[in-house]
Amino acid sequence: MNLKDKIRNIPDFPKKGILFKDITPLLKDSEALKEAIVKLADFFRDYEIDYVVGIEARGFLIGTPLALELDKGFIPIRKPGKLPHEVLKKEYELEYGKNVLEIHKDAISDGDKILIIDDLLATGGTTYAANKMVEELGGEVVACGFLLELDALNGREILKDYEVRSLLID
Amino acid sequence: MNLKDKIRNIPDFPKKGILFKDITPLLKDSEALKEAIVKLADFFRDYEIDYVVGIEARGFLIGTPLALELDKGFIPIRKPGKLPHEVLKKEYELEYGKNVLEIHKDAISDGDKILIIDDLLATGGTTYAANKMVEELGGEVVACGFLLELDALNGREILKDYEVRSLLID
Repeated sequence: MNLKDKIRNIPDFPKKGILFKDITPLLKDSEALKEAIVKLADFFRDYEIDYVVGIEARGFLIGTPLALELDKGFIPIRKPGKLPHEVLKKEYELEYGKNVLEIHKDAISDGDKILIIDDLLATGGTTYAANKMVEELGGEVVACGFLLELDALNGREILKDYEVRSLLID
Repeated sequence: MNLKDKIRNIPDFPKKGILFKDITPLLKDSEALKEAIVKLADFFRDYEIDYVVGIEARGFLIGTPLALELDKGFIPIRKPGKLPHEVLKKEYELEYGKNVLEIHKDAISDGDKILIIDDLLATGGTTYAANKMVEELGGEVVACGFLLELDALNGREILKDYEVRSLLID
């Protein structure tokens, strides 16, 4: 199956000039969903990983089935105000404005080996912030995995100190 | 394993007087996560289901691995402004204020048999709204599944016309 055919281009969303990559057709197709998760997991089966960390919200859609496929536990990084226990908060710059992410401080312990998962690698800013949060809590980012990488946005540059694996590259 | 031991009570979150059920310890424990998803899936293996619908955001954490476990596709119901294609929008009342959900209009076709998934059954208002959205698009809600049901909030009352299965009841 060509999984790229299951990703739909939506022009001018969420802002004019942006070509949005809509993964909902892939999620809806049971064979495509399974193939995507199994193949993405294949990248990481030989890595020493303690936990999969997924970034809200689309990172949850890929990260939890991937964690199950790899027999690992899942840790969420969430938008502000969603996690109920003590959090580490990180504000970071986006192309347009700022964003804030939170992670439970007790989610990660010294030396935990972490696989970071999101659906899309664009500029890499969100993933970079997530990696720094994991490291601040004593974790080690073993790799970052994505369903889809937008090559032209060069997200690998800001992530150059990390192992990056993307299932699809556009 | 007693899966209930993996759900943490956080008093006064997000508001004073609310005892928040934190499922992050369950997600983080690979064996608990697997057991929860497999056992929840066991409820529905004999049902005729076309798609699993999960409600943003914690419904994604349970719904996507469950869809994979059941070999079904996954359809997200999202917060407003997140889905890029044409949406059906539904506003509904919560205990404090209103909430809005959206689903892609082309996500569901006439006669599609749908399993609705969320992490928590509290008052049932969100699930009820999700069910009505699915029905408005021509789908049939075969059942609603939850990781945890808060019995005292009597969410089964508003969902009395639906099959409801919860893995844990508190």
